[in-house]
Amino acid sequence: MIFASDNWAGAHKSIAERLLAESTGFAAAYGNSDLDRRVEARFSEIFEREVSVFFVATGTAANSLALASVQRPGGITFCHQEAHVIEDECGAPEFFSGSARLMAVNGEAGKIDPTKLSAKIAHFPEDALRHGRATAVTITQSTEIGTVYSLPEIGEISTIARKRGLPLHMDGARFANALVALNATPAEMTWKRGVDMLSFGGTKNGCWCAEAIVFFNPEQAKEMHFIRKRAAQHFSKSRFISAQFDAYFENGLWLDLARHSNGMADGLRAGIGASNSARLAWPTASNEVFAVIQKSAAKTAEEKGAKFYEWPIPAGMPDLVSEGETLVRLVTSFATTEADVDGFLKCLAA
Amino acid sequence: MIFASDNWAGAHKSIAERLLAESTGFAAAYGNSDLDRRVEARFSEIFEREVSVFFVATGTAANSLALASVQRPGGITFCHQEAHVIEDECGAPEFFSGSARLMAVNGEAGKIDPTKLSAKIAHFPEDALRHGRATAVTITQSTEIGTVYSLPEIGEISTIARKRGLPLHMDGARFANALVALNATPAEMTWKRGVDMLSFGGTKNGCWCAEAIVFFNPEQAKEMHFIRKRAAQHFSKSRFISAQFDAYFENGLWLDLARHSNGMADGLRAGIGASNSARLAWPTASNEVFAVIQKSAAKTAEEKGAKFYEWPIPAGMPDLVSEGETLVRLVTSFATTEADVDGFLKCLAA
Amino acid sequence: MIFASDNWAGAHKSIAERLLAESTGFAAAYGNSDLDRRVEARFSEIFEREVSVFFVATGTAANSLALASVQRPGGITFCHQEAHVIEDECGAPEFFSGSARLMAVNGEAGKIDPTKLSAKIAHFPEDALRHGRATAVTITQSTEIGTVYSLPEIGEISTIARKRGLPLHMDGARFANALVALNATPAEMTWKRGVDMLSFGGTKNGCWCAEAIVFFNPEQAKEMHFIRKRAAQHFSKSRFISAQFDAYFENGLWLDLARHSNGMADGLRAGIGASNSARLAWPTASNEVFAVIQKSAAKTAEEKGAKFYEWPIPAGMPDLVSEGETLVRLVTSFATTEADVDGFLKCLAA
Amino acid sequence: MIFASDNWAGAHKSIAERLLAESTGFAAAYGNSDLDRRVEARFSEIFEREVSVFFVATGTAANSLALASVQRPGGITFCHQEAHVIEDECGAPEFFSGSARLMAVNGEAGKIDPTKLSAKIAHFPEDALRHGRATAVTITQSTEIGTVYSLPEIGEISTIARKRGLPLHMDGARFANALVALNATPAEMTWKRGVDMLSFGGTKNGCWCAEAIVFFNPEQAKEMHFIRKRAAQHFSKSRFISAQFDAYFENGLWLDLARHSNGMADGLRAGIGASNSARLAWPTASNEVFAVIQKSAAKTAEEKGAKFYEWPIPAGMPDLVSEGETLVRLVTSFATTEADVDGFLKCLAA
Repeated sequence: MIFASDNWAGAHKSIAERLLAESTGFAAAYGNSDLDRRVEARFSEIFEREVSVFFVATGTAANSLALASVQRPGGITFCHQEAHVIEDECGAPEFFSGSARLMAVNGEAGKIDPTKLSAKIAHFPEDALRHGRATAVTITQSTEIGTVYSLPEIGEISTIARKRGLPLHMDGARFANALVALNATPAEMTWKRGVDMLSFGGTKNGCWCAEAIVFFNPEQAKEMHFIRKRAAQHFSKSRFISAQFDAYFENGLWLDLARHSNGMADGLRAGIGASNSARLAWPTASNEVFAVIQKSAAKTAEEKGAKFYEWPIPAGMPDLVSEGETLVRLVTSFATTEADVDGFLKCLAA
Repeated sequence: MIFASDNWAGAHKSIAERLLAESTGFAAAYGNSDLDRRVEARFSEIFEREVSVFFVATGTAANSLALASVQRPGGITFCHQEAHVIEDECGAPEFFSGSARLMAVNGEAGKIDPTKLSAKIAHFPEDALRHGRATAVTITQSTEIGTVYSLPEIGEISTIARKRGLPLHMDGARFANALVALNATPAEMTWKRGVDMLSFGGTKNGCWCAEAIVFFNPEQAKEMHFIRKRAAQHFSKSRFISAQFDAYFENGLWLDLARHSNGMADGLRAGIGASNSARLAWPTASNEVFAVIQKSAAKTAEEKGAKFYEWPIPAGMPDLVSEGETLVRLVTSFATTEADVDGFLKCLAA
Repeated sequence: MIFASDNWAGAHKSIAERLLAESTGFAAAYGNSDLDRRVEARFSEIFEREVSVFFVATGTAANSLALASVQRPGGITFCHQEAHVIEDECGAPEFFSGSARLMAVNGEAGKIDPTKLSAKIAHFPEDALRHGRATAVTITQSTEIGTVYSLPEIGEISTIARKRGLPLHMDGARFANALVALNATPAEMTWKRGVDMLSFGGTKNGCWCAEAIVFFNPEQAKEMHFIRKRAAQHFSKSRFISAQFDAYFENGLWLDLARHSNGMADGLRAGIGASNSARLAWPTASNEVFAVIQKSAAKTAEEKGAKFYEWPIPAGMPDLVSEGETLVRLVTSFATTEADVDGFLKCLAA
Repeated sequence: MIFASDNWAGAHKSIAERLLAESTGFAAAYGNSDLDRRVEARFSEIFEREVSVFFVATGTAANSLALASVQRPGGITFCHQEAHVIEDECGAPEFFSGSARLMAVNGEAGKIDPTKLSAKIAHFPEDALRHGRATAVTITQSTEIGTVYSLPEIGEISTIARKRGLPLHMDGARFANALVALNATPAEMTWKRGVDMLSFGGTKNGCWCAEAIVFFNPEQAKEMHFIRKRAAQHFSKSRFISAQFDAYFENGLWLDLARHSNGMADGLRAGIGASNSARLAWPTASNEVFAVIQKSAAKTAEEKGAKFYEWPIPAGMPDLVSEGETLVRLVTSFATTEADVDGFLKCLAA
């Protein structure tokens, strides 16, 4: 009953075994092996166009370096107020971009409100030196609170960004979970809707460590070779990442894992929705579920071995939780079982 | 016959299998699992004192963040002119330390000359604002050109550093190779000789990706938690590093691998030393061999599948290579076989 | 009728003449002349304790370097949402501090709300790596909207900062205007109320270019020598700053100029308060006046040569301005005359 | 007899008086006044083409921001080993350019040796990620040791730079002294010989504080507005710089001052050259003279009030100074008098 985070899981068997299988023999280092090249080509197939791919060590690195690649002095990147880049990365995005600022934009359901985004951007006319200048927009898909931008919603954000010439980045730490939730193709959810750069995460969905920055316009990726090297993110034995992605993509494993993970979350959603002693804090569509539950139920679950985090009450929802209740986050993963879900729901019922 | 670099090898079977074995189950993320704790404790045992350990993604990251942790505005780190930090890291050490400068010091045999180090440091009296100020010294063990600092040589450098209060860092990307070459203990080769911080590399010696920063005084490591997080080097599934180190240390595997690797280099050294058509460019003691060989022999070897790099003639050795000859670097690894060595030597003889 | 900004004025006659008088002869560069030493000592007298003083080129430099001196990786500085550091300095404070973040805190009347400050700080428990960490608080005195923190208000902020060990910085670009508005001593308005570092501005109050960072604990200033040098803010002919400050402090000129400037603003406040066609947008106490006036009156004034800026409606005051009205900022300076004030008020009446 | 540095002088009477004259009245801030515009236009006249001009506070700022404007990750700027940027700016050039590296190139007479420059640049092939990449070249005119690049010598450096697409910067802290030494026009000594960016210094030649970055291709200057603002180098009362430059340029004052200064140095050169007890260390052409003198003569001069610095023996000239002798630097300025020169020469003779 581990719902603390999807990064508490290990690695999927197929991925771990592939890593073992690839461990023998010699191969050119720093991304120049045949396997590296094959996996790069696989990315292009998956996204239905030629893309540039850069492996990095963490999701934070993917976000930070992608954003850094489009920064300029005095630059400002707009993100949702609860975005990982601004809440959970200890200032890495600013650090790698030479101190460019992140600016929080509010919005319901964990998503940037397009009207508010326009208003924030308008605060930075192109010639207003002292305020700094708008340089990028980043969205998270799926979001930090389990929701998913619809395709038109992505398009709406990118239209605003494009009007000012701002590149649009997508933090896809849970890209696959959003993709299967929308039943969309990778292309539809990204460049076809105006996304320029993607942090493509595999770690939370069954890999050990597999994060990539994807540029949909390889022209814009040229500086990234130097940016990544200088950022100490250039793996020598690059094939240990490639091996993971190779297995991850094979026969659609990545989508299966995300479907499983979302499905487990569906189970939680259904059970909590039907419960008398618990309720969903807000609707979610991916592998994260936020629930208001009795504190006593939370205690019971923890005693029975469940792991999950209490969550801070969102700024805009002061009345969400009554006395004796608590807000919790439940995250499922490829490794979550129906028994985990049932076990947890039983704790609520008890 | 792959002698291009030790990072062209994959992962040792025991390490790759351990990674598979640890891939199941759930564990706390970000270094908080039981396995992480156990491996940290293992580091303290190996170094015979309580140490602080920080896993990072690359050797460049280990070097850069260790040096960054002791930097101050206007700071200058002294390193050998051929050091990895100054030659091969695309400016990462400077980037992570807020632009602190690296200053090259000459020295025979890939090692910092103590007299020259003293002279360089003396160029920066403590109150000489405009020059900047001395803030750290870093040495590489084993060095970039295959040599190894003796224990007294390390002590001599650290004495100079300490006289000015400069922390001493050791780049141990090939730490194990140096250790078995000296037949010393990890403690003797580091803190007992005045080393304050170590980049402890496992990747080149049989791991997939296992690099750690080791602080011998945990007091000095406090800022590293934030430095590493902000540097996007904090692995979520940290146990995939721990699992590698766990197998690496088990029953002295790491030392066995280094002994094997150095032994294969001994074979090359012996064969080249005895050859009529090749000679050692300079004596080496670890798993790197530098040889002057006939260009025709180099061509033959390459045609038979050997991989190695031609090496630039060092500044101080203009007469090293005659016409028709070339300088090459040969690096052995845990995966090098006697057949590889014999095969290469045969090419020279041919 | 120039009310655009106090930096549209030139330099006060006494200051400009002193600069001429000091232009002859030779003197040690980089702050080592007798005059430099004398002016430094004068700062200590004025603040009634030994202080460390660093001249820099701009108010932005003073703010940025002062804040940089207390930053650490992942650091966050709390400021009012309308503070100069976050609104008007193009990211300089973040840049000089290695990308430390500025976090806006709301508050009425241009002042940080202590309760909100406490809440924001509490969001960053000391061990919460991923969020970053609280490292400093900065307040502006007088504020960007013409108000002035009372002495107890300053104390309230510093008490909150101290509880978490956060140094408190004061942006005193208009320090003298606040001082005479409160009828307080420099010591009372700073270190006696818990301020650790001050940006002491002379430029807006009659100097050409005279800005200084003042540390009330010289121990904490040690790094500033290197920080300033590396920031390219170390004047060679430092005495051209000292000469200005020397005249500025002589016989209390600086306080007289601020009193004059505030007095001219009093005239505007009185006239606007009594007007039928204009009103004060909010009460102010220093040399800035914010007024809601008829657009037609604004146009008249501009046609008669008045200069002032229209001001954006503050976020919390959507109903401040009715149709046909506009919000304007009027700034007085040492060079403002009664005729300027009367002339402007007449435009309103017309 | 102040020969310590040209920045020990104050400001020339015409410049100081102009500053007083301009101190009255109001003017738009931040470089938008009529005077600012006029002085900008004057720069274009002087350089015989449209240039972009940015005032900054110090020569270090001019160098650092100019170089920063052409930097990219992993970038390397080539400079002479004794250049101000690498010896005297406490790491500012690296700091402002996001940690780009400075690389010293040797050369006789304080000038970059073109052959050595080519060799150094060749060490960085365009695709060699790990070494970093060549991004700029900077020369100092006149040099740190009083010599002057001839026009063909400048052209030779720029040809090498251009071959690799590297912008060429000139540190002109003593621009005027070089100009009159060569009897060249500003255009001939800069863009006509391939210089792209210039640090134009007025401070050492009779201004209080007047430094400017000049871009010969305004297209390349676009980012500088943001770079300078973020660097806290944007003066509010910009006209106090403009006023200095206005007087500086009027009727060729700047050239007269440089001629005077160089002429005083000629006096020193002649006297020392003819002396029995002193000799010129090397030939110089601008306002700096390096002399080997008896230690007893140095002592005598100091006792009589002369100020000058002993100078470190250059690396390549170990036999320059015999026992009982010392190497000294003598710098003349607009304020040096014939009496100063004669007085000093008498001390040598004594």
